[in-house]
Amino acid sequence: MRIYDIIEKKRFGKKLSEEEIRWFIRHYTEGSIPDYQAAALLMAICINGMDAKETLQLTLAMAESGARMDLSAIRGIKADKHSTGGVGDKVSLILAPLVAACGVPVVKMSGRGLGHTGGTIDKLESIPGFSAVLTEEQFIRQGNEIGLAMTGQSADLTPADQKLYALRDVTATVESIPLIASSIMSKKLAAGADAIVLDVKWGDGAFMKTREAAQELADLMTEIGTQAGRKMSAVISDMNQPLGMAVGNALEVKEAIAALQGNGPADLMEDCYALGEQMLCLGGAADSPETARVLLGQAIRTGAAYEKMLVWVSAQGGDTGAIQDTDRLPTARYRIPVPADETGTVVRIACRQIGTICGMLGGGRMEKDDRIDPAVGIVLEKKCGMRTEKGEPLAVIHANDKKRGEEAAEMCMQAYQIEK
Amino acid sequence: MRIYDIIEKKRFGKKLSEEEIRWFIRHYTEGSIPDYQAAALLMAICINGMDAKETLQLTLAMAESGARMDLSAIRGIKADKHSTGGVGDKVSLILAPLVAACGVPVVKMSGRGLGHTGGTIDKLESIPGFSAVLTEEQFIRQGNEIGLAMTGQSADLTPADQKLYALRDVTATVESIPLIASSIMSKKLAAGADAIVLDVKWGDGAFMKTREAAQELADLMTEIGTQAGRKMSAVISDMNQPLGMAVGNALEVKEAIAALQGNGPADLMEDCYALGEQMLCLGGAADSPETARVLLGQAIRTGAAYEKMLVWVSAQGGDTGAIQDTDRLPTARYRIPVPADETGTVVRIACRQIGTICGMLGGGRMEKDDRIDPAVGIVLEKKCGMRTEKGEPLAVIHANDKKRGEEAAEMCMQAYQIEK
Repeated sequence: MRIYDIIEKKRFGKKLSEEEIRWFIRHYTEGSIPDYQAAALLMAICINGMDAKETLQLTLAMAESGARMDLSAIRGIKADKHSTGGVGDKVSLILAPLVAACGVPVVKMSGRGLGHTGGTIDKLESIPGFSAVLTEEQFIRQGNEIGLAMTGQSADLTPADQKLYALRDVTATVESIPLIASSIMSKKLAAGADAIVLDVKWGDGAFMKTREAAQELADLMTEIGTQAGRKMSAVISDMNQPLGMAVGNALEVKEAIAALQGNGPADLMEDCYALGEQMLCLGGAADSPETARVLLGQAIRTGAAYEKMLVWVSAQGGDTGAIQDTDRLPTARYRIPVPADETGTVVRIACRQIGTICGMLGGGRMEKDDRIDPAVGIVLEKKCGMRTEKGEPLAVIHANDKKRGEEAAEMCMQAYQIEK
Repeated sequence: MRIYDIIEKKRFGKKLSEEEIRWFIRHYTEGSIPDYQAAALLMAICINGMDAKETLQLTLAMAESGARMDLSAIRGIKADKHSTGGVGDKVSLILAPLVAACGVPVVKMSGRGLGHTGGTIDKLESIPGFSAVLTEEQFIRQGNEIGLAMTGQSADLTPADQKLYALRDVTATVESIPLIASSIMSKKLAAGADAIVLDVKWGDGAFMKTREAAQELADLMTEIGTQAGRKMSAVISDMNQPLGMAVGNALEVKEAIAALQGNGPADLMEDCYALGEQMLCLGGAADSPETARVLLGQAIRTGAAYEKMLVWVSAQGGDTGAIQDTDRLPTARYRIPVPADETGTVVRIACRQIGTICGMLGGGRMEKDDRIDPAVGIVLEKKCGMRTEKGEPLAVIHANDKKRGEEAAEMCMQAYQIEK
């Protein structure tokens, strides 16, 4: 078999066989296929596509390219959740203890933020002492003991995806539904959960720009997971404005804690409930979404979900005092209000732009090795459909550098569109 | 400017600006753009194409990426000829002295063979002592003194094309009309001739598989050359069977000498005349193709073209004795006839296969640095449309290794299709 022939086949839009896909992944991971040949193949895949069968084979080959987590020692149907990424997306922080409190073990590998989107691990690390580096043994023990464990992506999982993702990132081959689906699903399959619920986001702040593209990606990933023997479900959600009110690591942790205490904004809670329903159903804790929603509501009201959060943070070395008194979370020096420049109704908030502003304040990464400032971010006061008077604050910028904060406030004002 | 954005633009089928193309070529030649990014861009160009304007800009950027020949010191309208490559294509060996004998200076950089096609420089080097390495000064002096000079591709011309070609060769991005056109024309423009005649071949033994693709390539190259201020003409020719009877380096030199002596096979002579007419017209030696053809015929009949060959070979250090007595050219040890396996008419000769057989005998290169055996090859006895009796020789294999020769004879028999 020759990589040249595989590239040529895809260049002319032909389907690759299972054998060809596995051969490519094996040799690329080993380093015997150079990046320039892989880049040519990736571009041909981006333009000419891959069908569901090819995508499944690619996913399985990548999932099997490195270590795989064996979670069989954890009792019950282990559930995982994946979001395709957005702005203000702190759902995992709420959903994990919420679902675990309802009796379904949640075991999750999470990523760090890059570009305009945040990452769950970065958010958790804004809790003093919290460690997102668990050994497999710790991960399994914690899964059994408290029904909830979250860790950063292990370096030895899916090395093929790690290499390919780094190459896609510099060759304009990220945006491709088969490549996105196989990248996400290979990691999820290797991470070992029995049930996987996907939150596939669309809109200005998401990778998928249309609901149709999000649906296509969701269907493909669901099909792959099902073929691989996992229980699968997907929720399509809107990412045309930030989710909830807070954008920024510690700010989002605060909002998540409030949500677990019953004070979450409606759009954020709706996303959590929609995903939680699926996780409880797949995990066998509820026999219908309606029953599941009742259980989820109870877990919030009784404080069980919040209690699970405390137990979880404590288990991973975090300071529970900072959960109970959120003023002890990292706090920015300056708070700069963003006044409305006219009276009217908010009709649009440029979502991706809000994510970019948070990055500019120091709350996100432009490059993989950038350090982030957990305290900074934006707290929205107004969301789409809300009325505002001229001069009333649309949002408040939390900054540690005054000049950057003022620039951020100006950019934030531009991100709002108000109509009379 | 960022290479990422340029790749992405072409990935989505948008047109690249002159500035973007020049920026890419400059940085890729310098080495500041890695091969994997160039490979992704090349694949996007292959699949999504480039229009005539983009192709012109790419050609000019590559032509200007290194040294350029200044031939202004040679008197007259200097003519060059380029063939897109075929099997048994010894046209340059005949055409160059023939056109020069008619008073149009012929100055040409030629290549070496690769894969199933031969190269003019390899063929010339089968003449004992012939040197295809001329300095620019020697090249110009010889152009003036005898109106004919031929040299190998200078290493400092079109470095961008050299790098890109090597990359295309391993990334399945060779077959692309804009990339082929810009590669050929950048070298031709840098080589400095005033008039360029193209022999664009199509069929089984050529890179272009259809007459339409050959015409498209010819039109594009003609347009590029014209826009760059050169006199241009193109001839489309059939490469569905080998040109003439001989395939193999020294064997083709023998056939070329015979042709200059008035004993060339009809198809070979027709290609030489068609191209020669254009060269004489563009070079100002004839005012119509009809007049040109008369002049070319005279140059053969009077021996002027053959005399020019002797002068040329002598000027480049070759042994003219081997031209006058072709038995002194390299000769293979074994001659193995290929008998017809039935009586009938030859309807097809798998042309590319004949080229491959010549390579297998040692007469061509599979890799760039392979050494070639000048003596070996195939001499056809029967071409398409000719009758044969069962057992009559279709061709004769010239081999230096008996076993390989016998394998070649078997393969050659398979390459012939005979119908009753």
